[in-house]
Amino acid sequence: MLENLKRDVFDANLRLVEYNLIISTWGNVSGIDRDKNLVVIKPSGVDYDEMTADDMVVVDMNGNVVEGELKPSSDTPTHIELYKAFPGINGITHSHSTYATVFAQALMEIPCLGTTHADNFYGSVPLTRFLTEEEVMSDYEKNTGLVIIERLAGMQIESAPGILVAGHGPFCWGKSPAESVEKNLILEKIAEIAFKTLSLNKDVQNLPDYILNKHFMRKHGPNSYYGQMKQQGEK
Amino acid sequence: MLENLKRDVFDANLRLVEYNLIISTWGNVSGIDRDKNLVVIKPSGVDYDEMTADDMVVVDMNGNVVEGELKPSSDTPTHIELYKAFPGINGITHSHSTYATVFAQALMEIPCLGTTHADNFYGSVPLTRFLTEEEVMSDYEKNTGLVIIERLAGMQIESAPGILVAGHGPFCWGKSPAESVEKNLILEKIAEIAFKTLSLNKDVQNLPDYILNKHFMRKHGPNSYYGQMKQQGEK
Amino acid sequence: MLENLKRDVFDANLRLVEYNLIISTWGNVSGIDRDKNLVVIKPSGVDYDEMTADDMVVVDMNGNVVEGELKPSSDTPTHIELYKAFPGINGITHSHSTYATVFAQALMEIPCLGTTHADNFYGSVPLTRFLTEEEVMSDYEKNTGLVIIERLAGMQIESAPGILVAGHGPFCWGKSPAESVEKNLILEKIAEIAFKTLSLNKDVQNLPDYILNKHFMRKHGPNSYYGQMKQQGEK
Amino acid sequence: MLENLKRDVFDANLRLVEYNLIISTWGNVSGIDRDKNLVVIKPSGVDYDEMTADDMVVVDMNGNVVEGELKPSSDTPTHIELYKAFPGINGITHSHSTYATVFAQALMEIPCLGTTHADNFYGSVPLTRFLTEEEVMSDYEKNTGLVIIERLAGMQIESAPGILVAGHGPFCWGKSPAESVEKNLILEKIAEIAFKTLSLNKDVQNLPDYILNKHFMRKHGPNSYYGQMKQQGEK
Repeated sequence: MLENLKRDVFDANLRLVEYNLIISTWGNVSGIDRDKNLVVIKPSGVDYDEMTADDMVVVDMNGNVVEGELKPSSDTPTHIELYKAFPGINGITHSHSTYATVFAQALMEIPCLGTTHADNFYGSVPLTRFLTEEEVMSDYEKNTGLVIIERLAGMQIESAPGILVAGHGPFCWGKSPAESVEKNLILEKIAEIAFKTLSLNKDVQNLPDYILNKHFMRKHGPNSYYGQMKQQGEK
Repeated sequence: MLENLKRDVFDANLRLVEYNLIISTWGNVSGIDRDKNLVVIKPSGVDYDEMTADDMVVVDMNGNVVEGELKPSSDTPTHIELYKAFPGINGITHSHSTYATVFAQALMEIPCLGTTHADNFYGSVPLTRFLTEEEVMSDYEKNTGLVIIERLAGMQIESAPGILVAGHGPFCWGKSPAESVEKNLILEKIAEIAFKTLSLNKDVQNLPDYILNKHFMRKHGPNSYYGQMKQQGEK
Repeated sequence: MLENLKRDVFDANLRLVEYNLIISTWGNVSGIDRDKNLVVIKPSGVDYDEMTADDMVVVDMNGNVVEGELKPSSDTPTHIELYKAFPGINGITHSHSTYATVFAQALMEIPCLGTTHADNFYGSVPLTRFLTEEEVMSDYEKNTGLVIIERLAGMQIESAPGILVAGHGPFCWGKSPAESVEKNLILEKIAEIAFKTLSLNKDVQNLPDYILNKHFMRKHGPNSYYGQMKQQGEK
Repeated sequence: MLENLKRDVFDANLRLVEYNLIISTWGNVSGIDRDKNLVVIKPSGVDYDEMTADDMVVVDMNGNVVEGELKPSSDTPTHIELYKAFPGINGITHSHSTYATVFAQALMEIPCLGTTHADNFYGSVPLTRFLTEEEVMSDYEKNTGLVIIERLAGMQIESAPGILVAGHGPFCWGKSPAESVEKNLILEKIAEIAFKTLSLNKDVQNLPDYILNKHFMRKHGPNSYYGQMKQQGEK
């Protein structure tokens, strides 16, 4: 069942390692079949060297395992909330990639300091609030999804392909599992360059709005002209 | 004698290089056979390219060589003291991995600034005091073990899979030689993220206790639910 | 048409990835045939894994596609302006390499703090001004070329094999596409060392002029004595 | 002539690249045959991909080429002065390795902040003064050797396997070409850890003298006990 999606999700999880976005088992990628309303996700805590595409777990929108021998990622309820809230996304990546996690731990949004950022995020990379003690005590992973959705209220999901969860790390998304990993790679590089820019010049100002607008719109939306036709709107 | 353990210890030592935790010969991994009360450890100062599993040295709990042509690691007495003090550990890794060594040299414990840390250490990564001149002059390596044990007095060994020796570097441990190397890899990443978080925001506060508790208990102890059954309690 | 130049441009683009100067599709290298007055450049937004030498696009000096199925890099007009202004250069590289981009975002020229720098740039690495809103609104990429040329007015192009565009990133050049990538690699390392030097000692002074002169002239100009005869004047 | 030494020098030069101590052609390793009083060194500015062992150049103690088609490294006179001054060294490496160069540019000796350092340098990593304008104008490379020797006056060469030339970068040495590269690798890691320690805690004190003594003497001199017999006194 869902063999192609399992393969896509498996490949995307391996790419987390290849891109140096995770060590150990610290990450998970999922994908959704919007027709069947089923999510495929990495099993929890399994060594990447031993994992196969068949180990991917299929869950329904309540988090019940529909197929698979293994327990799904403990972060599965977070993924499900995001898929429910944002119909436009079909893949989600969670990692503890270094520089994105640094901003999440420092409780700082990533300001837009250059065109590298503006090509990908329309403004600061958003940061959630901390979960309350009550939100942590019950349904922690589901509530993690809800604080993400709370932070994105009123925003276009296309304007931010990822977010930082306070004290935790990044979640990223895209039109496919592979694209969500690509967005995490991009977020990590944006975070690294911003970190070092702030270290070199703590008084640096945000990129002027007219350059932010130009760069974001060059790659996104109806008047984008970056890339080939078939890839219009993609990175 | 102890061929399997020699192989495990050898493989774990090679992984130190693969994980970029050491350069040159700056590290050593050991394992213990609790039934025979014998420790297997890397020989001292031997080039990793030339080392074989048969070069691993077997010593008894007094540090006497029981089998092996080569001298054991000069840090062997430190390992032995830790095995005597903590019956729950069966593998030990010592390295000079960069960021862990930076905190050890800066004489700072690593504060718990995020869930990456909380998943693995239940509170700050502990730091020993400096050895006194007397402790350095006689039985230096044994006394290094004793100051580690002194620092951990009253703590559960499960709550800290590693420690920083002041001015020196990390020692890590686990249920096997391989797990002790994995813990060093994790400590190194935690140290890197903490270093950069403090660089970005020197006024950052520790992660709220209720999130620390949640994350540590999600992966450790009787109510852990991360990973598969067979791996319960492991990372 | 221009098969050799296409191969050179293709190889140089792949080298951007190999040298870790870019992630994703964030870079472009071009080359010029000065006899035919045609530029060969990477297509826009194409995955490096799928790109072949035949995908390189040939454009004339007005940016019109002369050969090729794909759209040329959106930065093509910037490259063309530079080729028109500087007859001595035959290859151009644009990337968002980390440390060079950090200085561009911090709005700081890279001061000459050591002989590594002096071997390659005769003085600070120059930085452009921001483009105005008007310059961004129409002919953005062409105007990016013009602000680079404005900043270099009165300088010998040989004294600066690259420049930082404010809030954006580096452009580098050389006698061939391959050399322009090599100059980006060198600029990135110079930027990294300068960044860390300033972090360690913010009061550091520029290298004395007599050492700057010695090192730059040792490798460039009529009295250079670095390298072999056939390579005189090259790095 | 000197085929074995040419092979050793060639291999050691390649290792500079493998260890990420250099990019481009920014480094050179030499070796000396003390019986014949001849030095073998890398040719100047030759691409590492194209270089063979036969390209190594043989020079006498006045810098005259005795064998070889290519020009020797422009830094050859520096190497020769060091071989003349220090009969105990048989291999020399010069590079612009990042963190060592950062301290050289910041005009700071590297303080001994931990046992990683104390295992290898008996006290701070020394730094030369700047060469004067006169010293730069004539016989620059020879004078670079002389300021190194000036700085080391009164020191045991064994207590410092390398030095930083102000505003330039490191020179390292050892009993063979290979060992001199190994010392550069070690110096680079020591510099990195010191840089980050100072960044984390600018008020950190030097390692207590009794620990410095213990660690240096554990690996060097008549009472060393690190490593195997045949390797006594080596790292």
